[in-house]
Amino acid sequence: MTTVAYIGLGAMGLPLAMHLVRKGFDVIAYDIDPTRADEIVALGGRKAGSVAEAARDVEVVITCLPATPHVEAVVLGPDGALAQMKPGTLLLDMSTIDANGTDRVARACAEKGVAFVDSPIGRLVLHAERGESLFMVGASDEDFARVEPLLNAMGKDIMRCGGQGMGSRMKLVNNFLLLTIAEVSAEAVALGTRLGLDIETILKVTGSTTAQNGQLHTLMVNKVLKGDTTPGFTIDLAFKDMTLAMTAAAEYRMGLPVGAAAHAVYGGARAMPEFAKKDYSALLEWACRNAAVETPRTS
Amino acid sequence: MTTVAYIGLGAMGLPLAMHLVRKGFDVIAYDIDPTRADEIVALGGRKAGSVAEAARDVEVVITCLPATPHVEAVVLGPDGALAQMKPGTLLLDMSTIDANGTDRVARACAEKGVAFVDSPIGRLVLHAERGESLFMVGASDEDFARVEPLLNAMGKDIMRCGGQGMGSRMKLVNNFLLLTIAEVSAEAVALGTRLGLDIETILKVTGSTTAQNGQLHTLMVNKVLKGDTTPGFTIDLAFKDMTLAMTAAAEYRMGLPVGAAAHAVYGGARAMPEFAKKDYSALLEWACRNAAVETPRTS
Amino acid sequence: MTTVAYIGLGAMGLPLAMHLVRKGFDVIAYDIDPTRADEIVALGGRKAGSVAEAARDVEVVITCLPATPHVEAVVLGPDGALAQMKPGTLLLDMSTIDANGTDRVARACAEKGVAFVDSPIGRLVLHAERGESLFMVGASDEDFARVEPLLNAMGKDIMRCGGQGMGSRMKLVNNFLLLTIAEVSAEAVALGTRLGLDIETILKVTGSTTAQNGQLHTLMVNKVLKGDTTPGFTIDLAFKDMTLAMTAAAEYRMGLPVGAAAHAVYGGARAMPEFAKKDYSALLEWACRNAAVETPRTS
Amino acid sequence: MTTVAYIGLGAMGLPLAMHLVRKGFDVIAYDIDPTRADEIVALGGRKAGSVAEAARDVEVVITCLPATPHVEAVVLGPDGALAQMKPGTLLLDMSTIDANGTDRVARACAEKGVAFVDSPIGRLVLHAERGESLFMVGASDEDFARVEPLLNAMGKDIMRCGGQGMGSRMKLVNNFLLLTIAEVSAEAVALGTRLGLDIETILKVTGSTTAQNGQLHTLMVNKVLKGDTTPGFTIDLAFKDMTLAMTAAAEYRMGLPVGAAAHAVYGGARAMPEFAKKDYSALLEWACRNAAVETPRTS
Repeated sequence: MTTVAYIGLGAMGLPLAMHLVRKGFDVIAYDIDPTRADEIVALGGRKAGSVAEAARDVEVVITCLPATPHVEAVVLGPDGALAQMKPGTLLLDMSTIDANGTDRVARACAEKGVAFVDSPIGRLVLHAERGESLFMVGASDEDFARVEPLLNAMGKDIMRCGGQGMGSRMKLVNNFLLLTIAEVSAEAVALGTRLGLDIETILKVTGSTTAQNGQLHTLMVNKVLKGDTTPGFTIDLAFKDMTLAMTAAAEYRMGLPVGAAAHAVYGGARAMPEFAKKDYSALLEWACRNAAVETPRTS
Repeated sequence: MTTVAYIGLGAMGLPLAMHLVRKGFDVIAYDIDPTRADEIVALGGRKAGSVAEAARDVEVVITCLPATPHVEAVVLGPDGALAQMKPGTLLLDMSTIDANGTDRVARACAEKGVAFVDSPIGRLVLHAERGESLFMVGASDEDFARVEPLLNAMGKDIMRCGGQGMGSRMKLVNNFLLLTIAEVSAEAVALGTRLGLDIETILKVTGSTTAQNGQLHTLMVNKVLKGDTTPGFTIDLAFKDMTLAMTAAAEYRMGLPVGAAAHAVYGGARAMPEFAKKDYSALLEWACRNAAVETPRTS
Repeated sequence: MTTVAYIGLGAMGLPLAMHLVRKGFDVIAYDIDPTRADEIVALGGRKAGSVAEAARDVEVVITCLPATPHVEAVVLGPDGALAQMKPGTLLLDMSTIDANGTDRVARACAEKGVAFVDSPIGRLVLHAERGESLFMVGASDEDFARVEPLLNAMGKDIMRCGGQGMGSRMKLVNNFLLLTIAEVSAEAVALGTRLGLDIETILKVTGSTTAQNGQLHTLMVNKVLKGDTTPGFTIDLAFKDMTLAMTAAAEYRMGLPVGAAAHAVYGGARAMPEFAKKDYSALLEWACRNAAVETPRTS
Repeated sequence: MTTVAYIGLGAMGLPLAMHLVRKGFDVIAYDIDPTRADEIVALGGRKAGSVAEAARDVEVVITCLPATPHVEAVVLGPDGALAQMKPGTLLLDMSTIDANGTDRVARACAEKGVAFVDSPIGRLVLHAERGESLFMVGASDEDFARVEPLLNAMGKDIMRCGGQGMGSRMKLVNNFLLLTIAEVSAEAVALGTRLGLDIETILKVTGSTTAQNGQLHTLMVNKVLKGDTTPGFTIDLAFKDMTLAMTAAAEYRMGLPVGAAAHAVYGGARAMPEFAKKDYSALLEWACRNAAVETPRTS
């Protein structure tokens, strides 16, 4: 069985790493918080004291980290993973980072003869725990064949998006779309509420036309409309992902007029300390507050 | 069986009126284009030479007209329907008009002792033809009981939205939501295409996460992504409906920051004669043109 | 001397009518609030009990009213001015209304053989009081010659903008420009304040580059930056004028992407009762509140 | 007289460096294009073969470079200026870069005992040539005293904006304000043109009210309205500066709703190759094209 280093045991990374151990892979895990690896050890995995130690003698290094600077530091830094990796090994980055960052890491790997695959994660923590994650994979055919057993062990829907870097790009587009729809849905519900419609009517009607969408009818009905705005995915992180899209649009020379407006709303909402750390479905609370109406709740 | 005047035999009105005739209602039909009523007559209905003639001796008058000024002229004008209607009869307006217009018509009816129900139509012409329309009904319990058999004869999903005027308001919110999502989807697909993703990948991935929505995954896959931008629902009409939402927001004193941006995009697209009359799914062509990429097509 | 009916003695209308009386014109004045004409009478003018009485026997009728519906009611209504005006007389409308409204009134005048000039007022109440108003005049050469002495008596800068209706259009563009710059200035000052710059620095530097503008460097320094947000020109009225621009853009088929965003900000600010009635320079307070910083004041 | 290294002899840097030589400072100049220093030598200055050579033995190093990465490379890189500078010397950065970049350079200087002043340049190349530049200076009192003679030799309006980093921040706010007003002015002129107003009327009226601003009434009248869109300051560079503002807003947790819309317009305009390299006053051409009207020209 392949030997794997798993670096980054956050809300997403830990359950994915645990699936690998359970499926019989030889996993050596590392997180800056050393207690995070305890569950891996309990399942029969190993624990490393540093990135370098984790990466030293494995066939595949997996990284699952918060943002571009973390990935660059962990992979490219002087004590980073790449310095330890031998030609012929493979780096699988599952972080959501900017496409340029992905490209820089891919180039650095290529210079060392290390294969590289980007495979950001779709869906939520609860799906990760159940082994129902979706992966957006950017890889050559050859590299994909090497990571496919790992991805199958960790999740359910393995979606190839093109060559190196295209997983990262697909993730960016997917999150841009869903995060902007979340704000649109918030505005529509706030407007309806202001006009005197009750939330059950709004949900029933919009759910029966092509207004139907996963943000209002899957996310919000399970979160903010039940009064639950514990994150999930914070407004701060949503803003980070919207910024990735705006930055990509800038680099590729195009405007996103409605996306820019949504980006500004996220930017404004997180100016308020009580919103920045809420689940992003709390945009509905934000829209209702700005419209001077009570946020509706389903009964 | 109830006697019904049906005024306005457009793309939506004609098939709905035909369902009534087929289901045995005594229908007298009128349209400014007198040939439109021929199909009603062929099915066994009657044809009126004027609004006044149609409205004179019936229990229910149904109006299905393009915009607020048409409804006000046909109902409230000197030769209009209301002048002919007896106390105790009922007006059922199925047009999509602004909420203030609905309220003015409702008040005029009340002054004459005429009952009023607003019930704009959801879904597309093809659904109207199949008897699968959705109706958003604003009515008191008593009035609803009177129109329910008619609505059941014309469509499938009869959704009560509250008292008088709330059908009109629900329609406005529903279209605001779906039209804004259409533009968001157009931007996301244009961005993805610019980043090098192919359209099948974009559709597959976004359709498997909470980015899923009826505009991209139901409308666009059947229209613009197949290269078909024949209307459907034109960008001009979509702009009209977005304007209804912006106007309602203004009257109810709230901002719609992302909606305003989408409204401006529709406004800009229809500045171009070749776009104004296209199906609104052609927003994708607009976004791609502005991003200097080819509009993707599914194979 | 020309006999003049002056209808509408608001904050702008009254001082302008008073200039006419002082300069020797025979003025008969009317306002829905009958006490408003007392100052006209004190100066030697006359007072009418109704619009019809005012308009009956004069050569020129001047209207100075809040919005399109008021002008249409006062001029075109059954007891309105036009019904009393003889062929060859002239209507001078100084209200800020939508261009379509101006066109409708102009056409109704033409049908009766009444000349029509639109001449909305620029600058502030204090300028009107000092006789320093600016007028944006839409008129034929012939009609302009007739109103020029009146305009010279009321104000200082008489600016011809083209034929009938072009005064109304110029006013709309002028207010669109200044109101949008006001919001831009509010955002820039809020940003600078958030970044730690003091207001004197911001004013000094921006006032020395092409960032210089009349909203920040003339209006705001005299109003909100001194802590004074008494209107002036309320956010509600500013929103009305922004809406005129958005409506005109819609009718003339063009998008205003940044204007739309500014319109939405005005729309959001007036959702808050404490902002709707403030001077529009209070947009700076709104922007600072949204940025969670204190509104700066000059010392 | 102080010995000065001047690094970066672009459109702005070269004329500023030449003023220093003319005023008697001992200047050693460097640019990646070695021919750029020839004019310095012709005036009696010296020329260095590398950044390191320039920075080695001087009291003050001045940098005037395009963007953040250039400044970081030239100052902090392994062959950069800071490695050569002795404790007690001073770095004066005149580039327009992001505030974080300024802060990073300032910290690196502090660690080496090198003083640091940020002083971006306001106004245009023609002003730089005439010695009429405006400088926005972030410096302690002590450091300011050291650079004041240099700044006085190079320009006219020396504006202190606060301590280290505040010059950089003021520049960002100033450009955000003026660039957004440019787009607002473009939309207003396009709207007026669409409504049939001629450009002389628009300029005359807006220039006589608080709509007056330096973008329309100083920049555009001298550039695009005369048919001249040679840069000046390109749309690409304007987009870069707008991005600095959006990034700063993000870091300081605030939304810029109208600024975001303007940023998106710049982003869209530069998608078109023929616009990206034009002077940013060509936004008027962009707005007119989108409104399907001819760009007006003054005669």
